[in-house]
Amino acid sequence: MEPQVLTDILHEVAGALDHRDVAAVLHAAGRAAPAERGSLLLALTPPQLSALFRLIGQEPASDLLEEIAPSDAARLLVRLSETEAGAILEGMDPDDAVDVVQELAPSRAEEILHHVSRDAARELLELLPYDPDTAGGIMTPELVAVRPEATVQEALAALRDLAQQLEPGSIQYIYVADEARRLVGVLPLRALVLSRPQVPVSEVMLTDIVKVRASADQEAAARLLLEHDLMALPVVDDEERLVGIITADDALDVLQEETSEDIQRLGGSEPLDLPYLRATVGHIVRRRLGWVMLLFGGMFLTSLVLRHFEESIQTMVSLAVFIPLLIGMGGVVGSQTVTTLVRALALGEVAPRHILQVIRKEMAVAVLLGIALGIANTLLAWLMGVPVDIRYTVGLTAFVLVCWAMAMAVLLPILTHKLGIDPAIVSNPLLTTIVDATGLFLYFTLAQWLVFGR
Amino acid sequence: MEPQVLTDILHEVAGALDHRDVAAVLHAAGRAAPAERGSLLLALTPPQLSALFRLIGQEPASDLLEEIAPSDAARLLVRLSETEAGAILEGMDPDDAVDVVQELAPSRAEEILHHVSRDAARELLELLPYDPDTAGGIMTPELVAVRPEATVQEALAALRDLAQQLEPGSIQYIYVADEARRLVGVLPLRALVLSRPQVPVSEVMLTDIVKVRASADQEAAARLLLEHDLMALPVVDDEERLVGIITADDALDVLQEETSEDIQRLGGSEPLDLPYLRATVGHIVRRRLGWVMLLFGGMFLTSLVLRHFEESIQTMVSLAVFIPLLIGMGGVVGSQTVTTLVRALALGEVAPRHILQVIRKEMAVAVLLGIALGIANTLLAWLMGVPVDIRYTVGLTAFVLVCWAMAMAVLLPILTHKLGIDPAIVSNPLLTTIVDATGLFLYFTLAQWLVFGR
Repeated sequence: MEPQVLTDILHEVAGALDHRDVAAVLHAAGRAAPAERGSLLLALTPPQLSALFRLIGQEPASDLLEEIAPSDAARLLVRLSETEAGAILEGMDPDDAVDVVQELAPSRAEEILHHVSRDAARELLELLPYDPDTAGGIMTPELVAVRPEATVQEALAALRDLAQQLEPGSIQYIYVADEARRLVGVLPLRALVLSRPQVPVSEVMLTDIVKVRASADQEAAARLLLEHDLMALPVVDDEERLVGIITADDALDVLQEETSEDIQRLGGSEPLDLPYLRATVGHIVRRRLGWVMLLFGGMFLTSLVLRHFEESIQTMVSLAVFIPLLIGMGGVVGSQTVTTLVRALALGEVAPRHILQVIRKEMAVAVLLGIALGIANTLLAWLMGVPVDIRYTVGLTAFVLVCWAMAMAVLLPILTHKLGIDPAIVSNPLLTTIVDATGLFLYFTLAQWLVFGR
Repeated sequence: MEPQVLTDILHEVAGALDHRDVAAVLHAAGRAAPAERGSLLLALTPPQLSALFRLIGQEPASDLLEEIAPSDAARLLVRLSETEAGAILEGMDPDDAVDVVQELAPSRAEEILHHVSRDAARELLELLPYDPDTAGGIMTPELVAVRPEATVQEALAALRDLAQQLEPGSIQYIYVADEARRLVGVLPLRALVLSRPQVPVSEVMLTDIVKVRASADQEAAARLLLEHDLMALPVVDDEERLVGIITADDALDVLQEETSEDIQRLGGSEPLDLPYLRATVGHIVRRRLGWVMLLFGGMFLTSLVLRHFEESIQTMVSLAVFIPLLIGMGGVVGSQTVTTLVRALALGEVAPRHILQVIRKEMAVAVLLGIALGIANTLLAWLMGVPVDIRYTVGLTAFVLVCWAMAMAVLLPILTHKLGIDPAIVSNPLLTTIVDATGLFLYFTLAQWLVFGR
């Protein structure tokens, strides 16, 4: 749906509010992908936006803003009156709302928060200090907690009181906390439904609790939740006090986002922190130019290597014919290894302690692929009718280069991982650039030895 | 944990079963990553395996086999007696068990199924016909369904009867089906808890049901579930009859697997269908060699291009110095674009109808990056002291090559997506190879015109 279509619908609606089916309008907006909805809404004028939100009501408006990028949501909120903005913000899930508040200018955020109820504002202010990339940054404070001495019936009553206003993920568990708010047990909703009403929760709760510190990395928290197949994961502070929960859908968003970042880094650019269609040309250029220029510096080395061997090329121009072939092959096998390994490290399939096992395996693969490509290159050089000593130089370089490229492709990601850097930084283009320069040096050194005999 | 450690534990356990804490043994095994557990278990002899499973009991054994790769689980089952294998298979969730059965030789599967209860065997046989890559292939038939005229109390009773034996994800919803098993409504567990007991479910059920056909692609089904933040998604056959459900954790596994496949394809190899540490050297070579040889064929074209221009290189050897630099740059910017775009297509952020918008955006980025790299290359050539006409050739080639590489990087993934092929097939190495050959042709054509004046 193009922005024009939504605008058209709005005009129609404004003219004939009473005989149009509001549900149909919503349905049309609902068909647009979430990433598009943000830009659709940003294309509206403030009065149009205000009219739309009045038309659909505060709750759907809050839902809509939860789905789009927090930066877009913030830009939309400042176009509304503070009363409207406050109401919509209050209706949002606190973990989403706080992301929007963090995108607002502090003075503007304060003004809007004046129009939010005291309780909701307090919840938001409690979430504000957490770094958005930590477990605390993605948790919601909305949860159902009871004391250990409460009965199953009382726990169900507490659940009923809150069920209407909480996310579905928030009511899958009832948490049991002592008087100091320390987490002592968890009660899955289904256990509650199956227990007798008069039993104290301390008798039926689970005490082997999977939980995470608020300061933990968001990706680690999300993987923990998924590994244990939980619907929600409790978050505690440094004193083991229950401060919030992470719901499964938020964990999933985190993993999706982290995977997207890894993929983009592997491709050799800084991740766009916006959906693609929302990123401006300037934003995309800024995200890519740094790596391009850095790698350009690396490729400059490749030119220097060739410059150094210019005389050999002059004497035996056939050597130049194989340059792109050889470095291309190094790039292909290196890229295969590095992507496989970066993914296996991200999923936790491979850990640094497996380094010897990985090296043994990749080196065995390297020798086999190296032999295949060594023979293929020798045959190709023979077909092209180059002198016999160049044939063997090309074949031997192919073999050594494949082994060398794959060794780099194993060592660099594992090394960065050990240093605590995301191994996805060892992108395909970075690896290719390193292999290009060193591979050419190897090629001409071998050529000087085999072809020129010095 | 190395295989030796598990074997040591087993020996210890066998010698002193009564005074060892079984829970501690299990805990040790539990610390190994799921991908490792399969190989740990495969390292055991059949008597050891049998002893371990007797020790931990049938239910934990079934859970263990659910977590590891179905092919590993099948290899373990055939080492046990048919009675043991049948009991463990029966204890597994049917969606996992059927994957294992599909890995067994048909005669062996039949023998083991003889030792499974009639009901469980029937459930498995109903799942067998579905293609593992479809919604039917990942669904479980275990769900709670009631007739529309049942009361809330009766629905809760039905739930209670089944809750012990079903996965947590299976009891988040009660499905309402008519006498022909057609799905007519859904009742979330929380709605049930909050309703009065005597009300018929038809009054409180949701009738706007998100569901999927059994023949639908598994990835599409998983994305549907996630988009709607569901805990489970009902699966219907061609007659709209309810045949199973997909639970959120299974949907997640599918997405994780599909993303891994995309990443490996982007890196230029066929995806390993096993965890990395479990893949043998032969398996890895087979997965990579095809693409390596295909791309080798492509790079051969690059050599032919250079061969064609050998005379130009002979006359002006400085031209050769810039070959790796220029094609390297084409590779970097192409790789940045293709990875960003393939991911955006996979997430549904970009659809084929956005093609014009994407082309406009990437071409604007290309012109800006092209200008930056054109200037950088001209300066570099000046620094290296090459003749002035080569400087301009290098600068101009850099500009045109960046635009060309990025155009290919936009068009190829969108084209494959339109043809119904996974766009991840347009891997970084494939794109680089295409850009290499065409880029060099461009470079030497420009050189002949600018340097040699013909």
